[in-house]
Amino acid sequence: MRAVTFTDRLEVRTDYPEPRAGAGEVVVEVITAGICSTDLEILRGYMGFTGVLGHEFVGRVADGPHRWAGKRVVAEINCVCGRCDMCTGGLATHCRRRTVLGISGRDGVFADRVSVPVRNLHEVPQAVSDDEAVFAEPLAAALQLTRQIRFDIAQTVVVLGDGRLGQLVARVLRHTCPTLTLVGRHPAKLELAERQHIQTALADDFVPRQAADVVVDATGSAEGLALAMRTVRPRGTIALKSTFAGGAAIDLSPLVIGEITVIGSRCGPIPDALMALAAGDVDVTNLISRRFPLTDAVEAMAAARRGDVVKVLLDVR
Amino acid sequence: MRAVTFTDRLEVRTDYPEPRAGAGEVVVEVITAGICSTDLEILRGYMGFTGVLGHEFVGRVADGPHRWAGKRVVAEINCVCGRCDMCTGGLATHCRRRTVLGISGRDGVFADRVSVPVRNLHEVPQAVSDDEAVFAEPLAAALQLTRQIRFDIAQTVVVLGDGRLGQLVARVLRHTCPTLTLVGRHPAKLELAERQHIQTALADDFVPRQAADVVVDATGSAEGLALAMRTVRPRGTIALKSTFAGGAAIDLSPLVIGEITVIGSRCGPIPDALMALAAGDVDVTNLISRRFPLTDAVEAMAAARRGDVVKVLLDVR
Repeated sequence: MRAVTFTDRLEVRTDYPEPRAGAGEVVVEVITAGICSTDLEILRGYMGFTGVLGHEFVGRVADGPHRWAGKRVVAEINCVCGRCDMCTGGLATHCRRRTVLGISGRDGVFADRVSVPVRNLHEVPQAVSDDEAVFAEPLAAALQLTRQIRFDIAQTVVVLGDGRLGQLVARVLRHTCPTLTLVGRHPAKLELAERQHIQTALADDFVPRQAADVVVDATGSAEGLALAMRTVRPRGTIALKSTFAGGAAIDLSPLVIGEITVIGSRCGPIPDALMALAAGDVDVTNLISRRFPLTDAVEAMAAARRGDVVKVLLDVR
Repeated sequence: MRAVTFTDRLEVRTDYPEPRAGAGEVVVEVITAGICSTDLEILRGYMGFTGVLGHEFVGRVADGPHRWAGKRVVAEINCVCGRCDMCTGGLATHCRRRTVLGISGRDGVFADRVSVPVRNLHEVPQAVSDDEAVFAEPLAAALQLTRQIRFDIAQTVVVLGDGRLGQLVARVLRHTCPTLTLVGRHPAKLELAERQHIQTALADDFVPRQAADVVVDATGSAEGLALAMRTVRPRGTIALKSTFAGGAAIDLSPLVIGEITVIGSRCGPIPDALMALAAGDVDVTNLISRRFPLTDAVEAMAAARRGDVVKVLLDVR
């Protein structure tokens, strides 16, 4: 089958072995996949991953006797053991032995087919299109913030980063915090947010005043946290969404001096994301900048790196 | 008067100008002062401070008509304006225009006399000796953790750093979390904690397992946070007590992946510290390793840097 692999380089292969469904797994035929910043970071060495890239997707369970056969699905990306202290302690997404689709120890979704644990599947409601469903995973990651932080209409909230995740975070939080500001470097991307009635500011014009109650760092860069520390008020909260390859030299003493709380935030509740999409709460399709056939994945990844591009989709079938 | 000053170098002066009490201030005669790691970091450029060093002390208000005259006191180190958004918003210790005794914009306590705002003073109860009272400020900083984090007897707590602050943190938290472990590099210092019935582990023997509910980083080094991230469990909490000069290259992606909360923690409630000392809840005097007259401050600062030394006091009168 066709698959986009990363070893020492990015490659589109046509002879990649078909996935085999292990115990408790099914094979899913990928319809459309999305390129995430994590995919781009993996090309820079993040997680030391090699294999088939990709974890954002919508697909259809391959025909077969299984009760999921033929269903249109998205999937949790963390594949867990169900037996370790994390799994039995209610923290299954932090399973000690987990593999992660296209990120750690398991082939991902930039391929004709992918093997996924049945327990990871979520059926996509009919009201949700393929192009919307492909946002279920990153939208869930944005929604996770609302499970970790108690947002309030009276709070001053700043989202740093106008990229894929920052846009989703702003769209999710504006319902609770209508005065939030999305700060970014790209006028065209900020305009996308403005069309959703989100206040924006160009990074060059933005003056951090140590006054925001909550700052979400979705910049995907080391400078994001430094700017967040200058933006948040004393005893305020920074939600850290950025992961990137390599360490960054950063002075963390402002955290201590300002008694700031930093909360790392990763994956979120996919059922909530599907519900939000079905209800039309969050408009995601205007974030699709470009789409490529799977075979043009190398070009697609390069396009996803461009500053003026938000979401790039790979059409698999 | 005599004063220990830092400009480009550390110096004991005998001709330093007497402090003048400004509006709302009194002059306090210093009895004994303590050397803190922050003082040592200032010598490395932290905060860019120049002037009279020192912020831990016990003293006596100079004679005069004031109702505080002759009282034995300790003092809050943050001198605040009382009018900015932080002061009026309940966050006075984060005053936008604050000065900090011997740390930022105001002369400190390694001197015969120091000028302090009256509002900063706390009278020392008779049951508290001078040598105990000098610990009020750092003990308050340790107690601050109990205001920021809800500790519970069922929690696994690890304190990293057997130095001045780590020792106090362990002494404070062991009441709520009797199973806590203090991890350090110095057998002699760990023994001090063991005498207080605190479990200890040598850093070289300590195997981080991403299993602790709460980790307090009191190492005062960049490696502390890295070790804390390997020690805390997913969705656990790291309390950051370390400040140091200069940025450190550190990979923060474990915070995001583990959805860890980091809480910066600084100064704390001095009245609570005085009460704990008066009640004998926390034994601090066995932390005094050495004491020097003020005029030997250069030697005292060098001694405080040694790994086998905990608290070094400066006797001023």
